[in-house]
Amino acid sequence: MSGFCFSLEARDGRARAGLLQTPHGMVETPVFMPVGTAGAVKAVLHRDLREMGATILLANTYHLMLRPGDELVAQLGGLHGFSGWSGPFLTDSGGYQVFSLAALRQLDEEGVRFQSHIDGTPHLLSPQRSLEIQQRLGADIVMAFDECPPGDAPREVVAEATARTTRWARRSREAHHRGDQWLFGIVQGGTHLDLREASARELLAIGFPGYAIGGLSVGEPKPARERVLSHLDPILPDDRPRYLMGVGTPEDLIDAVARGVDMFDCVLPTRNARNGQLFTRTGRLSIRNARFRDDPRPPDPECPCPTCRSVSRAYLRHLHQAGEMGAATLASIHNLFFYVDMMRAMRQSIRLCRFEEWRRETLRRLADVSDGS
Amino acid sequence: MSGFCFSLEARDGRARAGLLQTPHGMVETPVFMPVGTAGAVKAVLHRDLREMGATILLANTYHLMLRPGDELVAQLGGLHGFSGWSGPFLTDSGGYQVFSLAALRQLDEEGVRFQSHIDGTPHLLSPQRSLEIQQRLGADIVMAFDECPPGDAPREVVAEATARTTRWARRSREAHHRGDQWLFGIVQGGTHLDLREASARELLAIGFPGYAIGGLSVGEPKPARERVLSHLDPILPDDRPRYLMGVGTPEDLIDAVARGVDMFDCVLPTRNARNGQLFTRTGRLSIRNARFRDDPRPPDPECPCPTCRSVSRAYLRHLHQAGEMGAATLASIHNLFFYVDMMRAMRQSIRLCRFEEWRRETLRRLADVSDGS
Repeated sequence: MSGFCFSLEARDGRARAGLLQTPHGMVETPVFMPVGTAGAVKAVLHRDLREMGATILLANTYHLMLRPGDELVAQLGGLHGFSGWSGPFLTDSGGYQVFSLAALRQLDEEGVRFQSHIDGTPHLLSPQRSLEIQQRLGADIVMAFDECPPGDAPREVVAEATARTTRWARRSREAHHRGDQWLFGIVQGGTHLDLREASARELLAIGFPGYAIGGLSVGEPKPARERVLSHLDPILPDDRPRYLMGVGTPEDLIDAVARGVDMFDCVLPTRNARNGQLFTRTGRLSIRNARFRDDPRPPDPECPCPTCRSVSRAYLRHLHQAGEMGAATLASIHNLFFYVDMMRAMRQSIRLCRFEEWRRETLRRLADVSDGS
Repeated sequence: MSGFCFSLEARDGRARAGLLQTPHGMVETPVFMPVGTAGAVKAVLHRDLREMGATILLANTYHLMLRPGDELVAQLGGLHGFSGWSGPFLTDSGGYQVFSLAALRQLDEEGVRFQSHIDGTPHLLSPQRSLEIQQRLGADIVMAFDECPPGDAPREVVAEATARTTRWARRSREAHHRGDQWLFGIVQGGTHLDLREASARELLAIGFPGYAIGGLSVGEPKPARERVLSHLDPILPDDRPRYLMGVGTPEDLIDAVARGVDMFDCVLPTRNARNGQLFTRTGRLSIRNARFRDDPRPPDPECPCPTCRSVSRAYLRHLHQAGEMGAATLASIHNLFFYVDMMRAMRQSIRLCRFEEWRRETLRRLADVSDGS
């Protein structure tokens, strides 16, 4: 496991401030990982990510295996060489995407057969195949291949998927050979605390350098999700990073850090940006709103990001209404900066032992429904 | 005319190297002005324009009067305050766009009545109205309102449009009052040298601080365009800037500078970039081409632009094929850098009295049809 190390630098309550060393650089946790599905964060250049302080990007195995293909990426130096992002990468296993995007799925113990959502070609994803692809892509952190049942699946379906996820985790572990990657296991079990606990304990028995919590943010009520996190917190080992997959809003991230989570990814900041929705320190703001037509203020007057330092709400609204790509870029830079900056502030509050105070005040301001006025 | 000055720094043959001082900064000529139709260059942030050395942007009166409206732009500090671009701006008069984009045009001596291509609302553009809008937008250089007949119009139609353009130029002159803007006249006359000459002499009699050559790049053969430029060169005053509107390819710009032109604008570098076509020092390159699938070289190996310093052809092709906006941004930055950098090199060659040598060598390399391989 050359080049890797995770250590806790500080704790405050259940919240943790850690340092995750990877072969491509240090990651301070809690961390938000911008989503670069096809090896690029939508509408944002690597340079802007670096400048805002993003340290680690997520890329999607499912998308990259289909286009441009994992062999091509490997041939061009893996994700780092191919994309030019020199910091750490994490790849998911493709499990979630194959269940949410692909057509004509056939699931059995071996894996999932499916048709590409791009051109209909047939493919197989299995623990072996996912790990083969992820080792070719060459991310610093790779994920075990898991089964993701729908959020409204009955308990027996979730139980079966959870048991299979454990068997697949073992096969993923056996298929993983690269010493310069960390392989994380994924805890499943829906909102059933006993299934979650069993899943976690089985993964712990296999042994992974880090643990992800999957199968959340799929429609469950927020209290149910928080019960899962609180239940898993004392079960998961203290000295290993915990990664909550696909979550979520700023409030979600804060409440998950309060329950011991270290790592996050979510498409929300970039997807919302393309739809004209901005996160601000006093709540969300839809730039399409006619009230911003002649508003000379920056999108978030308290924000030091490049967008807020250079454009007004009126100009950003104009670009959005005119269908200019620059609107998506400017809004994405702001939203990602907002997330990255919030994690920085959260981390600092943990180190200073005033996380609860910071959390209370930040949540209070985020709940301000003034729509930025 | 406060804050304005144009002076020739060097000549080589008919080619000119000049300095154009504006209230928002110095422009070295020959210059290429990136097109920022709606007050923003498509897919490129102001910051990238500044870093590549772009000095002056063009914005379109027709688009801005329709959306967001000239009154709103004025209220927010004009184009500079509204867009945040602190360097010089030039606005066209809307004449060309109203003839190429708007529906249900009705032309008479007063001006052109038309329906917005966005929402069908009725509008009028006339010399008075165009100058009213342009003075509200507040660009450093504004243009007289002209009539642009189609490229294949018969001589009598061109003659009538040219005569009207002169009458409208006089009315534009009378409607222009801002001392911090320069108003340029526009020479029309199609490919008819006698009409061009008459148009130029009539505009000279009115007197403008700069002269544009309109109505070219509308389908005429390149030799016909070059005859017009060569014919106008000795007629237009030496000490005033000359602006060839809407032209063109790198070769076109070089051949126009050789005939005494100082200023250019064109959508070609940005529009082609969005379609995946890159200008390189050895000819054009279509990034969609399958041969670039695994090509690890930069788009243009000789190019020092941010795109060529950071991505491979294979990665750029992947982003383009995947429909990622980043492909348009990276390609637009490269193509605009290519244009801006070519003008820099051209200017330097004029100052060193080796323009003809530079021109011959550059045209020879551009004619290399190797498609970048």
